[in-house]
Amino acid sequence: MLKPERISRKTIYQSSWVNLYLDTVKFPDGFVIEDYHLLDFPRAAVAVIVENDFENIVFARISRYTTGLTEWELPAGGIETGESEIEAAKREVLEETGFSTEGHRLIYSYYPMNGSTNKQLHIVQCKAIECVQDFDKNEVNEIRWFTKNEIRQMIKDKFFTDGPTLTALLLWLQG
Amino acid sequence: MLKPERISRKTIYQSSWVNLYLDTVKFPDGFVIEDYHLLDFPRAAVAVIVENDFENIVFARISRYTTGLTEWELPAGGIETGESEIEAAKREVLEETGFSTEGHRLIYSYYPMNGSTNKQLHIVQCKAIECVQDFDKNEVNEIRWFTKNEIRQMIKDKFFTDGPTLTALLLWLQG
Repeated sequence: MLKPERISRKTIYQSSWVNLYLDTVKFPDGFVIEDYHLLDFPRAAVAVIVENDFENIVFARISRYTTGLTEWELPAGGIETGESEIEAAKREVLEETGFSTEGHRLIYSYYPMNGSTNKQLHIVQCKAIECVQDFDKNEVNEIRWFTKNEIRQMIKDKFFTDGPTLTALLLWLQG
Repeated sequence: MLKPERISRKTIYQSSWVNLYLDTVKFPDGFVIEDYHLLDFPRAAVAVIVENDFENIVFARISRYTTGLTEWELPAGGIETGESEIEAAKREVLEETGFSTEGHRLIYSYYPMNGSTNKQLHIVQCKAIECVQDFDKNEVNEIRWFTKNEIRQMIKDKFFTDGPTLTALLLWLQG
């Protein structure tokens, strides 16, 4: 199938974290968009569903500068150079909750904002083994386990506004 | 509750579409992040679940320059200045599918990538009335209705990689 094609590029900003380009793009039917803002993210991210033996899920309480909100979120973060999705998931859970984990599996990969960025998010599910260290107090205020019924009710109450957390939990509930 | 606080700001890029700032941010516990990349989106977006009388949902086939993928997506787009979420939903559905709609309700609002942007997405659900015009051929290749069972299977097959579509459909299935 024919795809949109780049005609020219103006580089606004480059970094290891995000690149901002203004591209001129020609679509298959000949339609041309000048100044298409492309936010290019060199690194993907993971969000992690950590279950215990009772189907409870662990959450980290995080204050977001981006939105000004403080919420219960799933452990999540960027994948470092050379890391697999599973390794990143294991590391983020350890840092943000203090728990070691096992039985990791990648359950879904998607683009959270494909209208403007190519940032990819991988959702990993795993089991908690045990608490082996303190969580990172710079990033996380508190951790807590929620039951499946609590999570279902929190979604009904539109409690989660953090996209990766919301989407991952909905996939988990869908089974 | 104490929130992360901006100490200083370096403006990299400004436009009506996106602003890129490098902020120095002080977190409540005193931890300081220099060069926090904030992607500030002045406008929110909507994604729309349009049902017919048989609980089928309408999809638009769209080629994304950001990801290089062509997929079935829910009608979606940015909210224009002065528009409500509902008005934007009505307009986007008309443009991308040709259908007039009624009974709109906002079912969820969230931040798809709250780790790096403040972009907000609103999910609106409504009923199709009738096809009143052609869909916009510059943006959409084709439209099609899918059944609830097809959608459930497509999610199981990890078919949708478009975040707003995936999240909206999961909320709809959750009821």
